[in-house]
Amino acid sequence: MNREWDLLHTPGPTPIPPSVDRAMIQPMIGHRGQKCKDLINRITPRVKSIFGTSQDVLLLTGSGTSALEAAVVNTTKPGDEVIAVVAGSFGARFAQICESYELNVHRIELEWGNAVQVSQVEEALKAHPETKAVFLTHCETSTGVMHPVEEVAKSVNEISDALVLVDGVSSIGGARIEMDQSGIDLLVTGSQKAMMLPPGLAFAAVSDRAWEVIDDNDRPRFYLDLRTYKKKLGDGQTPFTPALSLLFGLEEVLNLIEEEGLDDVFERHQLMKNMTREACKALNLPLLVDDESASTTVTSIKPATFNAEQFRKLANEEFGLMVAGGQNHMKGEIFRIGHMGYCRPANVLQYVSILEIILKRLNHDFKPGAGVVAAQEVYLNHTREGK
Amino acid sequence: MNREWDLLHTPGPTPIPPSVDRAMIQPMIGHRGQKCKDLINRITPRVKSIFGTSQDVLLLTGSGTSALEAAVVNTTKPGDEVIAVVAGSFGARFAQICESYELNVHRIELEWGNAVQVSQVEEALKAHPETKAVFLTHCETSTGVMHPVEEVAKSVNEISDALVLVDGVSSIGGARIEMDQSGIDLLVTGSQKAMMLPPGLAFAAVSDRAWEVIDDNDRPRFYLDLRTYKKKLGDGQTPFTPALSLLFGLEEVLNLIEEEGLDDVFERHQLMKNMTREACKALNLPLLVDDESASTTVTSIKPATFNAEQFRKLANEEFGLMVAGGQNHMKGEIFRIGHMGYCRPANVLQYVSILEIILKRLNHDFKPGAGVVAAQEVYLNHTREGK
Repeated sequence: MNREWDLLHTPGPTPIPPSVDRAMIQPMIGHRGQKCKDLINRITPRVKSIFGTSQDVLLLTGSGTSALEAAVVNTTKPGDEVIAVVAGSFGARFAQICESYELNVHRIELEWGNAVQVSQVEEALKAHPETKAVFLTHCETSTGVMHPVEEVAKSVNEISDALVLVDGVSSIGGARIEMDQSGIDLLVTGSQKAMMLPPGLAFAAVSDRAWEVIDDNDRPRFYLDLRTYKKKLGDGQTPFTPALSLLFGLEEVLNLIEEEGLDDVFERHQLMKNMTREACKALNLPLLVDDESASTTVTSIKPATFNAEQFRKLANEEFGLMVAGGQNHMKGEIFRIGHMGYCRPANVLQYVSILEIILKRLNHDFKPGAGVVAAQEVYLNHTREGK
Repeated sequence: MNREWDLLHTPGPTPIPPSVDRAMIQPMIGHRGQKCKDLINRITPRVKSIFGTSQDVLLLTGSGTSALEAAVVNTTKPGDEVIAVVAGSFGARFAQICESYELNVHRIELEWGNAVQVSQVEEALKAHPETKAVFLTHCETSTGVMHPVEEVAKSVNEISDALVLVDGVSSIGGARIEMDQSGIDLLVTGSQKAMMLPPGLAFAAVSDRAWEVIDDNDRPRFYLDLRTYKKKLGDGQTPFTPALSLLFGLEEVLNLIEEEGLDDVFERHQLMKNMTREACKALNLPLLVDDESASTTVTSIKPATFNAEQFRKLANEEFGLMVAGGQNHMKGEIFRIGHMGYCRPANVLQYVSILEIILKRLNHDFKPGAGVVAAQEVYLNHTREGK
């Protein structure tokens, strides 16, 4: 099957809305000219509400990881004590970046599939009172856990001066987050998840408190030096040539989000999460994460009666349905369905129905139609209550 | 005038060919799936000849500057002595990155508009025999000088063990360069110049000798750690989510280059350079750079009878013709016409003709039509001789 028929449900990259595709192929413009300044000045104020902040949202040209690294190198010095919550590949990556940059990292290691508890971070802070920063992942893409980063941030702020730095790569745009209210100091994301764009653009928002640390920090840095991004943004520019086609696309993404309404965007993600999870339960498919800790953007299934890779292979071959496998030690044990960005309840009904067909082929024991009906019921109940 | 009518002749970003625009909006794919591996495996061998190398060309997600920084942080340690040729903004940027990363930088400072001489680098190497690396700019975009980096590299290799690291951002794809033959150790470029793509993708090719230094270097680095790009490329992957839409486009760029023939692509750039320069001479417009040192991709004009910014304003307002101004102390003194990538002799005839009209408005003394005729003659002579 060629890719025109693919149903992309990995937790990023995600499908691009057709109007965003069209917006990206506008004629190229100079990055130091007035048209580019106008574009950046139109875009950046509109991104703030998605981050729950009144701070500027800086635009970096790079993968999401470039923004994670920016968070590390701008706020820390070699030897600094920091705490990192590691409950999957992306928590591990944040910690690994910290270690690469010679920080003294205290890891809070959790079993994959679990969310961190506020008390665990509090204990770590008590054990390491010199901690300068706490690194958190909002949605841990490798498991589908949504860590309670807002609660953690509030608690850290109450008992410590440590900065709270949050990886929002697979959550921003698909889950509400109140950066300012909860006292998050640095929040980053990438373009290729709930932001409905191709990969290549990264975003970073910074609190006043974090700017003080950043401005005072003499660690060597250049491409990812957030000070230059802040300075240039004042003039509607970026320090280096930005990913212009993605900026063109971003403007249309913002149109789409505002047309739907940001609250409704978040509610749609919540609904897709619930539809997916109830369908899995009805199909006797164990979920890796409990309801409360589960992400609104990605759901991990841990099948008991077949190999997860076998499922992925069949779903891909027969329907072009692309879901992600498990990472590291979870390979073969789980598969992960992305439901974020350009994805709506109708897509959930579609993949649940496909899922049932593949389960049949794998001789999994379930009642045909039960998953679809469960998803339909969640949908119907939601719209009865909500509208 | 709206941007649909713009004539973009800045030295990057440059216009995107329509077939490349179309190629970029293919359906999104997962970056860890087989389709992405196939794509990267198809693309990367075809980029080598453009770099004049048999080495792998690594794909980074970032502006060109990210690749400059990758060159610095991968090959050097704090305190290393290095030589940097500074003859414009981009030479200065390379030196600035070196300084940010705590190198002991010996600058060869040249007047803007001049090319470095091999003997100048030789003298610097004699004065600083502990030099670990020489940083060069192939095309200095801020002046339109093409430095003789191949000759410099050969000479450095003869008399020293220093690595030769070259910024090819505004030359690769628009000027022949033989990385392997001339002994260049690290050659980088960006996507938005002669590579005919939007900004956001960067390229780096590395010699065996440089890999030894890089593999042995323990300087902290993560996002720009070339070792991980090399390792992942073996599996048809990138370490972090790549700018997929630009990779889709790159495949079509390679189709276009191969269809035309790489030699013919370079010859076209040479021809556009000559047409532009002869037109300027015929119009009594002083050129910043002499014929021998001038770039095939960008031409700087230093008008004596009017302000360069005035020219830019009128050309922009009346024809949507976008050329670049001078940078730093050259602001108002020069304007720079980009003729690279998706640009052909017909475009030169067009902008020369527009140029004449604007010169009329500025009361510049010249014979109407003289520029166009000069460009035509270069074109006719070239095709008579060449074909």
